[in-house]
Amino acid sequence: MNAYPDEHTDPAELAAEARRRDAADPLAGYRDRFLPADGVVAYLDGNSLGRPLRAAAERVTRFVHEDWGTRLIRGWDEGWIALPQRLGDRIGRIALGAAAGQVVVADSTTVLLYKLARAAVDHAVTGGRREIVLDTDNFPTDRYVLEGIAAERGAVLRWIRSDPASGVAPEQVAAAVGPDTALVVLSHVAYRSGFVADGPAITRIAHDAGALVLWDLSHSVGSVPLDLDGWGADLAVGCTYKYLNGGPGAPAFGYLAARHHGVLHQPVQGWFGHRTPFEMGPGHEPAPDVRALLSGTPPVFATLPLQAGLDLLEEVGMEAVRAKSVALTGFALRAADTLLAPHDVRVASPRDPQRRGGHVTLRRADFAEVNDRLWKRGVIGDFRAPDGIRLGLAPLSTSFAEVLAGMTALAEEL
Amino acid sequence: MNAYPDEHTDPAELAAEARRRDAADPLAGYRDRFLPADGVVAYLDGNSLGRPLRAAAERVTRFVHEDWGTRLIRGWDEGWIALPQRLGDRIGRIALGAAAGQVVVADSTTVLLYKLARAAVDHAVTGGRREIVLDTDNFPTDRYVLEGIAAERGAVLRWIRSDPASGVAPEQVAAAVGPDTALVVLSHVAYRSGFVADGPAITRIAHDAGALVLWDLSHSVGSVPLDLDGWGADLAVGCTYKYLNGGPGAPAFGYLAARHHGVLHQPVQGWFGHRTPFEMGPGHEPAPDVRALLSGTPPVFATLPLQAGLDLLEEVGMEAVRAKSVALTGFALRAADTLLAPHDVRVASPRDPQRRGGHVTLRRADFAEVNDRLWKRGVIGDFRAPDGIRLGLAPLSTSFAEVLAGMTALAEEL
Repeated sequence: MNAYPDEHTDPAELAAEARRRDAADPLAGYRDRFLPADGVVAYLDGNSLGRPLRAAAERVTRFVHEDWGTRLIRGWDEGWIALPQRLGDRIGRIALGAAAGQVVVADSTTVLLYKLARAAVDHAVTGGRREIVLDTDNFPTDRYVLEGIAAERGAVLRWIRSDPASGVAPEQVAAAVGPDTALVVLSHVAYRSGFVADGPAITRIAHDAGALVLWDLSHSVGSVPLDLDGWGADLAVGCTYKYLNGGPGAPAFGYLAARHHGVLHQPVQGWFGHRTPFEMGPGHEPAPDVRALLSGTPPVFATLPLQAGLDLLEEVGMEAVRAKSVALTGFALRAADTLLAPHDVRVASPRDPQRRGGHVTLRRADFAEVNDRLWKRGVIGDFRAPDGIRLGLAPLSTSFAEVLAGMTALAEEL
Repeated sequence: MNAYPDEHTDPAELAAEARRRDAADPLAGYRDRFLPADGVVAYLDGNSLGRPLRAAAERVTRFVHEDWGTRLIRGWDEGWIALPQRLGDRIGRIALGAAAGQVVVADSTTVLLYKLARAAVDHAVTGGRREIVLDTDNFPTDRYVLEGIAAERGAVLRWIRSDPASGVAPEQVAAAVGPDTALVVLSHVAYRSGFVADGPAITRIAHDAGALVLWDLSHSVGSVPLDLDGWGADLAVGCTYKYLNGGPGAPAFGYLAARHHGVLHQPVQGWFGHRTPFEMGPGHEPAPDVRALLSGTPPVFATLPLQAGLDLLEEVGMEAVRAKSVALTGFALRAADTLLAPHDVRVASPRDPQRRGGHVTLRRADFAEVNDRLWKRGVIGDFRAPDGIRLGLAPLSTSFAEVLAGMTALAEEL
């Protein structure tokens, strides 16, 4: 039973709908907050790299001239030292449903994932739990990191083989966890299909088995509202260069629930995770709070675009972002049904908006080559092996007309 | 015997000398390449945070508007993927004496140090070598990281207690290494005294004992010419926000000699260190080259100021930078002898320019408080516990008059 039947079959009707929706869109005006993307017809990859805000460019210029240029080393005492936690708290409040004191901005997603997973696994292994449960559809770097940790800590990977289209089901997690489970690591929004996992249910199932859960929120944060504290979540990571518009390779964020502070210890013990970093004392003593997740000097300069992204997200609010996101992806799927299904294009993303994140993936055997052609005409999606074109529809920078332009171009290439 | 006797005792003569030296300084014109630091009388902390270049500000603006803003995700295919190695090769060629293919830019210094030290220790421990040799005067984060690695790998820390003023001597290393030594970790330029360790001699001593050496080059790179390949060096890390002007919290660099590729494996296995990152295949297979040091998405945006810094350093050349550096620190020491010695200020840095890096440290019991007062009048040095004011004299942005202004202000505060 399909609860979301096709509404339109007439391409002209889709164009009228796009115009109508853009005219009625309360978020339409925010598109002007972004720098123009000359030569781009449709940017449908905001889930891979978000577009730069004008405010980001201004903030960076101001920072280089004023903060870095004239405050110089004094900047550390005047706010930079606290930045990883201050930005973490902001992300927590605006996007994660996390109370203050549980999130930091640092490192790359991969490095933070390593630190958090090691913290959890090291602790569990001492208690005799040796299995890490993960999904074959986890993002590759997550799988590689866990493979490495398993090898170095003598743990075992226990794989859930989720259907990439329908995603990991709570029942699959329930069947995988048990008295040997140290940690469950899953993506909240799947990087290919966009499937939204049932965060609270899976967290509960893992906890019932005595295990912890580490959520990869890279494709969720800034797109799907989260309630980590409400879920009773343990650990999470995510990246800031997608829906938070942090720029290419921007630092990541990590969440460690307060009850685990001082209990779970990450292995990269550096001076910024020390209880008193500037005493530069003889031995390491981890900070008693979430700062213990830090290692090296915080990437101050690298967080400037993110700060502009958070300003905007706070102004708009996650509920409004999500409402437009659901409408954009719904519109994209109906356009796919109308324009692309006749060309044997299959939808690989959930129809149910409750289970659908901010991107949709379409499949056809020749899409690797088709995506190259789309790029050349300024329609920018993302190819994902083996045969997917993934369209990430960032609600703050994407219009319905832009989605339709992209889908129309795709149809023309087929 | 002091080979570098005081040349001047008359403050007026110092002022004349500063003017004469600035007028004759072939590098004087490069000061205009930096953004003005309004309100700063003397910036004597370029070894803690280098000043921003005008070219950095321009590069960042251009990048945000053009590269990120219009190429968007296509930027990855158009150069960003290769950036960690391309910048690594540049640092290697310009500043490290390292042939191409052995250096990457990534992470923080602390995280890269962890990765490299783990790679070396993991390998050595399998061969039964369980000791890590380090110096009590190593930078704190290095000590903390190694403490953590020793605990997790069952290794033992063997401490050299160097004299902070005269630095770690080759004989001390020779006495510390042996058949149990896995790794020697030392700073090439000591973070407090500025002492320059004997890189080639110490490397040879460690190798003769069958051990590897990891050099922390944070206070050397861009200040003291290096010849890593010539030393037969194994591993090295360093930071780019000091003499390379990369901005607060800029990414670090790591060096892994070609002969260790495919032999030493770092533990944070992420997708950017995979042999074929974008195949996103099922299992991790490390890249056969230095890219295996990478883990997560490269910090593209964060490297923009560094790129401007490398442009300038390449234009000037390390030899010219070092020549001015030696003259600046020598002048600072003579000013200290003239203006500060009468106030019981002691010099804690080597007199021998061959053994002196780009910064000098002066000591007096009340310097914590004195440094606060200096900051308020725009004279920016760095306090280092317990009683040191450390003056980092970046040759490209610092004049002799600026050094003298700082020393005069310091004298006035005593």
